[in-house]
Amino acid sequence: MPAKPVPGVFENPVILEILERYRVVWALGHAMGLLSWDSETYMPPKGVEERAIASGELAKLRQKLILDPELVKLVEKAEGLEGLNDYERGVVRVLSRAIRIAKSLPPELVAEEARLSQEARDAWKKARSESDFSKFKPYLERIVELERRKAEHLGYEDHPYDALLDLYEEGLRVKDMDAYFNTIIPTLRSTLEKVRSEDFYPESHPLESVRYETKAMEKVNRAVLDMLGYPWDRGRLDVSAHPFTIDLGINDVRITTRYEGYDFRRTLFSTVHEFGHALYELQVDERLKATPLAGGVSMGVHESQSRFWENVIGRSPAFTARIKELLDENLGFTRDYDAVELYRYFALVRPIPIRVDSDELTYNLHIYLRYELEKGMITGEVKVEELPQLWNDMSENLIGVRPKNDAEGVLQDIHWSLAAIGYFPTYTLGNLIAAMVWRAAESEFKDLYSLVEEGRFNAIRDFLRERIHRWGSTYEPKVLVEKALGEPVNAERFNEYITWKYLELPNKL
Amino acid sequence: MPAKPVPGVFENPVILEILERYRVVWALGHAMGLLSWDSETYMPPKGVEERAIASGELAKLRQKLILDPELVKLVEKAEGLEGLNDYERGVVRVLSRAIRIAKSLPPELVAEEARLSQEARDAWKKARSESDFSKFKPYLERIVELERRKAEHLGYEDHPYDALLDLYEEGLRVKDMDAYFNTIIPTLRSTLEKVRSEDFYPESHPLESVRYETKAMEKVNRAVLDMLGYPWDRGRLDVSAHPFTIDLGINDVRITTRYEGYDFRRTLFSTVHEFGHALYELQVDERLKATPLAGGVSMGVHESQSRFWENVIGRSPAFTARIKELLDENLGFTRDYDAVELYRYFALVRPIPIRVDSDELTYNLHIYLRYELEKGMITGEVKVEELPQLWNDMSENLIGVRPKNDAEGVLQDIHWSLAAIGYFPTYTLGNLIAAMVWRAAESEFKDLYSLVEEGRFNAIRDFLRERIHRWGSTYEPKVLVEKALGEPVNAERFNEYITWKYLELPNKL
Repeated sequence: MPAKPVPGVFENPVILEILERYRVVWALGHAMGLLSWDSETYMPPKGVEERAIASGELAKLRQKLILDPELVKLVEKAEGLEGLNDYERGVVRVLSRAIRIAKSLPPELVAEEARLSQEARDAWKKARSESDFSKFKPYLERIVELERRKAEHLGYEDHPYDALLDLYEEGLRVKDMDAYFNTIIPTLRSTLEKVRSEDFYPESHPLESVRYETKAMEKVNRAVLDMLGYPWDRGRLDVSAHPFTIDLGINDVRITTRYEGYDFRRTLFSTVHEFGHALYELQVDERLKATPLAGGVSMGVHESQSRFWENVIGRSPAFTARIKELLDENLGFTRDYDAVELYRYFALVRPIPIRVDSDELTYNLHIYLRYELEKGMITGEVKVEELPQLWNDMSENLIGVRPKNDAEGVLQDIHWSLAAIGYFPTYTLGNLIAAMVWRAAESEFKDLYSLVEEGRFNAIRDFLRERIHRWGSTYEPKVLVEKALGEPVNAERFNEYITWKYLELPNKL
Repeated sequence: MPAKPVPGVFENPVILEILERYRVVWALGHAMGLLSWDSETYMPPKGVEERAIASGELAKLRQKLILDPELVKLVEKAEGLEGLNDYERGVVRVLSRAIRIAKSLPPELVAEEARLSQEARDAWKKARSESDFSKFKPYLERIVELERRKAEHLGYEDHPYDALLDLYEEGLRVKDMDAYFNTIIPTLRSTLEKVRSEDFYPESHPLESVRYETKAMEKVNRAVLDMLGYPWDRGRLDVSAHPFTIDLGINDVRITTRYEGYDFRRTLFSTVHEFGHALYELQVDERLKATPLAGGVSMGVHESQSRFWENVIGRSPAFTARIKELLDENLGFTRDYDAVELYRYFALVRPIPIRVDSDELTYNLHIYLRYELEKGMITGEVKVEELPQLWNDMSENLIGVRPKNDAEGVLQDIHWSLAAIGYFPTYTLGNLIAAMVWRAAESEFKDLYSLVEEGRFNAIRDFLRERIHRWGSTYEPKVLVEKALGEPVNAERFNEYITWKYLELPNKL
């Protein structure tokens, strides 16, 4: 029984049959999303073992259903069809890709990766807490060996790392990322040098150590989400150890934050960041619900939306002015600082060894470091045993700080323990696309920041929905970017954004 | 790849292969449980439509996986095996039964039931709010017709209603229920008459209208759960419109309650009731986890556990005395009443038209009424159009109260709108088995209620675990009852319990 036609969106009978068969795959994804949300928020601690069994079984089942012979046959049939519209072609593209990936990876390799990453995560946790890379080294060696095999199974044209990049960002290649980094790194380093020789952006701020009440801060976060237009009847704000967004459907997109009790900008901007992720999912065309197109298209485009709200909108003088009263009323201690001073706190610039706490000028240097090391590991030019030394040297040369130990160096991120090699570059890609959105919004609105000052966030939401969000996964990322923002990914926009914000803006305040 | 052997529990290689293949079915059940818990607790309101799509797809998928030809073949092979232990035979029994039921119901009928009960529930809600049976009648007619066909597909020996009873309580038959009701109804009616002619158990109590603060009451509920031994690292207490228990695994069993703001015994005893359900799941042998045996064996045995804690333990003078201080400290207004007076409030006896608010003496009369009507509907002796009249007449004759309208008569329960015909009798069966547990506990401990007074609930938990809980679904309900409590289901025990509590006990206080 085929799904019901949606005029102008899904009409071709083969596509309708595909959608009908796909719905159970979507349902499994929905359930797996809820399991993961629950694990991080409300699950009783001892539930963890049975939850792991359930998640593992459902992940295997989902793969099996994607390779269901009837579905595969229909998708193959659809690949040869003429006259499909963009949505219908999107369905075929997304499913062909999922099937191709699932088919190319032997089940033993998938099972091995799942087992190994479970063990490796435990080893990594222990190694990090003891700041001892040698405890993690044997696991990482096995992971690298596995990921190299994985790249061969997936296939690639130029570079084995391309195969892994593509898993996280459809169509992203080493030659793209090399060019992006070559464009932005000189600007980042020279801007960083200038900013540090001037007085405007501080290296640290007294507000970093001021403590807040969780309840008061929660009120602030909720009021900020209200202001931005987060729809509470279609989402939630909960607390978890690591903030995240989860989309269980177009009308159920939940975010989390955490309250550390001091340095309130951390929870504030983490909340705004997750709002950006959530808004993307919330603004997908409702006609795409429960289909392969019902969700953001890629990690990079997703990250562009979170970074746009966090950095471009959130960490701006206009936004700071807009929320000043709210902060004063609820936190009190912000009354001692005017809006410009608060902005300086929000946007401080300080090279440090840790990526996740880094500012906009050093963040992508951290990613570049990981990118170069990952490429080397996958080609075999970099040996796992050399990593701590290489990491520390690169950190010193690139960012200007040398990690004191492995815990704040090579062991700082969880990604490698999860076998997620190829993931980091999407963070930088997100920053690049966010700057393109900034440029496009500036040219759309003439003065983007007067909208922010006036709280007219609905105009910004509409702009993002029309240009990007509503399409879901209809177009592949590169096509979407060009269609939405008028040009292919252009790293120069990021340089323009950085130069404007860190060199020009201070003179105008 | 077979599951790992568990010495003394699962060792036969065919059984191990079955368990390995079954695990994904368990995982789906786990996910469906979480979806349902979330729908009642934290889901944003607009998530409901996509949640319904997901739940429907997963229910169909679960059926399909139960009928997976490889699994079916293995179970058939196992049916012929000699030398299996009790656990292994339990696995075969539970899966053979699930496969037999799934096979005998045509997919069209299952789909029709799902669709119809969705529509019927909406119609029932509307009909009840307008107290107009005619709005629900056409749906109920279709449901009865469907359930009659369902009974034919399932098959039965004596009575078509047997086929439906068996769905909710493996092995329960009309001849059993007829005998149980014949045993208890005269005692219930005569006891009710005596109690109402005496002064001890009141018909109403001033505390029914006293308002409480939700926060204070939540503290009471949590303290009571602490006292009973609810393990917070393996469960949760949340709020939902209708209280329920959900087992997501042996180490994740969650309960809910609701706070109406007055008549605090309602939320208190609802919490104790759900604790009883939860304890059953929490005390299943951990070696049975993620297998077909990992859960309570039937609705009736489950209800016996909740009723045991709610009525036998909870609504006792000993329990009242035990929690008196807690109530006084948190609610305050209970200080005006001594423990005996509080007990009279907890155990008041008042015939009313509504089942869910009924006391121990009238509750099973309500069930008997539904049981007789359901039997009649399934044989065709009772027409749906006659129901309101029949209902009101029976209520008047049996319970002594005539509903004022359909809303408090034939429309009061949701069950029929869900096509759950055959479910109600398990409530009475639960009460009967709870009285058998009371008798067994009395003979085990000599004085059960001194344990309660002293707060030695661990002894009662251990007793229940050893006798009943740890077996999960290993034995079919009738076998479990006889094994655990020394005799087959014996309705006389309920008469003894009722006579002791309502006629003898008042003279000793």
